Amino acid sequence: MASRISNLFGIKYPIIQGGMIWCSGWELASAVSNAGGLGLIGAGSMSPEILQEQIKKTKAATNLPFGVNVPLLYPHTEEIMKIIIAEKVKVVFTSAGNPKTWTKTLQDNGIKVAHVVSNSKFAIKAEQADVDAIVAEGFEAGGHNGREETTTLTLIPDVRLQTTKPLIAAGGIATGKAMLASMVLGADAVQIGSRFVASKESSAHDNFKNAITQTTEGGTYLAFKKLVPVRLIKNDFCNQVITKEIEGADKEQLSELLGRGRAKLGMYDGDLQNGELEIGQIASIIDNVKSASDIINDIILEFKVAQQQITHTRFEV
Amino acid sequence: MASRISNLFGIKYPIIQGGMIWCSGWELASAVSNAGGLGLIGAGSMSPEILQEQIKKTKAATNLPFGVNVPLLYPHTEEIMKIIIAEKVKVVFTSAGNPKTWTKTLQDNGIKVAHVVSNSKFAIKAEQADVDAIVAEGFEAGGHNGREETTTLTLIPDVRLQTTKPLIAAGGIATGKAMLASMVLGADAVQIGSRFVASKESSAHDNFKNAITQTTEGGTYLAFKKLVPVRLIKNDFCNQVITKEIEGADKEQLSELLGRGRAKLGMYDGDLQNGELEIGQIASIIDNVKSASDIINDIILEFKVAQQQITHTRFEV
Repeated sequence: MASRISNLFGIKYPIIQGGMIWCSGWELASAVSNAGGLGLIGAGSMSPEILQEQIKKTKAATNLPFGVNVPLLYPHTEEIMKIIIAEKVKVVFTSAGNPKTWTKTLQDNGIKVAHVVSNSKFAIKAEQADVDAIVAEGFEAGGHNGREETTTLTLIPDVRLQTTKPLIAAGGIATGKAMLASMVLGADAVQIGSRFVASKESSAHDNFKNAITQTTEGGTYLAFKKLVPVRLIKNDFCNQVITKEIEGADKEQLSELLGRGRAKLGMYDGDLQNGELEIGQIASIIDNVKSASDIINDIILEFKVAQQQITHTRFEV
Repeated sequence: MASRISNLFGIKYPIIQGGMIWCSGWELASAVSNAGGLGLIGAGSMSPEILQEQIKKTKAATNLPFGVNVPLLYPHTEEIMKIIIAEKVKVVFTSAGNPKTWTKTLQDNGIKVAHVVSNSKFAIKAEQADVDAIVAEGFEAGGHNGREETTTLTLIPDVRLQTTKPLIAAGGIATGKAMLASMVLGADAVQIGSRFVASKESSAHDNFKNAITQTTEGGTYLAFKKLVPVRLIKNDFCNQVITKEIEGADKEQLSELLGRGRAKLGMYDGDLQNGELEIGQIASIIDNVKSASDIINDIILEFKVAQQQITHTRFEV
C-alpha cells in the first residue's frame, strides 16, 4: 500500500515533510530526505532568487529525492516553476490554485506532481488534472485550511472514494500511530508539518519552536475565516483576532488587523506576542525539539510497534 | 485492548451506539444490544415518564446489557436518575455537566458510568470523578460539540496521555476502518452516532434519514458557537444561522432565531427546511439506511479485513 508513494518519489519511508512557509528551507528538506522521507522546500515565503539558492543548497546536502511546495496563488509562480525545471527538481507539491495550470508542464519535464486539497471536490479536480498524487489535508492542520472544515478522519475516506490516485493524508499526524491510523483509513503515505516545525533543522525561530512544545490541547484557533482561514497558536495577536471576529468584524477590518508580514514576524523573527504562529492542533502532543532524523526514526519505530500490537488484538469476548 | 470495554459492559463488540436526542429510543437501543454492541437510550429528548416507558420496552426487547445517555444539564436529572436506578439499568453515559455529581451514586447502585468529554481538561475531571470509562468526542461529531474544536485524530492521543481509564473514541466513526484507526490511536472502543441515526430502528423521521444519505462532504456546519455549538446539516434553517453569524449576531439574536423545538421539528417531525438536523461530518459517506445489526456486522467485517490488510502491509522499499 504505502509503496505506491515510496516508489513514486523514490523514497524509503512514505513520510512527506510539509513545505511550510518560514520553516522549510534547505536544512530541513535535506535532513528529511537523508533520513528516508521526502523533504520539501516551502517556496511560499521565498523570492525566486532565495528559492534557487535553497534548491542549490539542498542538492549539495543530499543525493536523495526532495521537492518544492509551491502555492499557486504566489505572485512569481511562473518564475518559480522555471527555476524548479532548470534546477531539475524531481518533485513539486502544488496547493491553493488550479492543478490543471502547471501539472502537465511539470510532468513533461520529468517532475512528479502532488496537489494538496481540503475537500472532495478539489480531489476530483486534481484527479482530472492527472496529478501523480493527492494530499488530503484536514481541519486540524496548521497554516491555511479548507472552508468545509472537514477533519482528516472524515476527509481521507471521502477522498479515497473519489480517486484511485496515490493518497497522502495530512493534518493531525505527528506520530507513528497516527501514520498507521491514516493508512488504515486508506492513505498511502502521510504529510507531516507541525512535528517538523519543532525540529532542529527547521528555520523557525527558537521562540516559535519552544511555543509549540508549550501548546496544549485547545491551544490553537482557526482564524480569518472571512479572509483565508489559517490555524494559529492562541497568542496575544490571535486573541485580538478572536475578539474582533466575535464582534462580527468584516473583511476590511480583519485585513487591517492582519496587516503585512505577521507570519514572518511570529514564525521567523520569533515575536510571540504580535506574530502569526501557524501550527496544527497536534502541537498539543509535541513536547520537544529534536532532529529530523530522530523524528522519522521514532515515527517508524512507533508505527512498527503499533502495527504489531494491532495484529495481535482480539476484540471479541 | 478492546476487551477492556467489552468486559466492562458485558458486550460482544466494543461498539457503543450514541444516545442521541430524537433518534435513540427502545427500538434502536435493543437492536444494537441484540447485535452485540451497547445500545443507549437518549434521555435528552425524553420526559421522565417517556424514559421509564422506553427503558421497560428495551428490557422487554433484549436480555443483553443496554444503557441510558443523560445530559447532566437536563432539568429533570434527579428524577431521571431515580428511574434509572429503580429500573436497574446497568450502564449510564453522562455528558454536558460535572461528572462528580452523579458518578458515585450510580456506581453505588451497581451501574457502570461513562462520561463524555470534548477536551483533555474534562477528561482529567472525569478521571478524578473515577468514572468507569471516558468517551472522547471530536469536532467532526454531530450534535453538541466542544469549543476547543479538537478533532478525533488529535483528541484521542491527547486524552490517552491524560488517563489510564478505558477510552471510547467518538466523532467521525461510521466504518470498520475508522474503528480500527481509533484503536490504533489508543481507544479501547468506539461510540457511533450518525451511522445509527440512518438505521431502520432509529426513531428519526424518514425525511431526516434520507437527508443523511444525501449529505456530501462539506454538507454540515458547526452552528451556534455563541450559544451551545451544534453540528447541523446545511439546510434552509442552518443557512439562515450562517448568514446571521457572519453578520456578528449576538446571543440574544441567535436565541431568537433558534426559538424552541427546532431539533424535534427537523429530526423527529421531518421538516427539512425549518428544523435542526444534527449530524456528524461522516454523514458524507453514509449512503443507505439499514438495520442496526447489518450496521454492526458490516463494521466488524470491515474491521477484520482492515486488520488483516494492515498486518500484511510492507511500507519500506
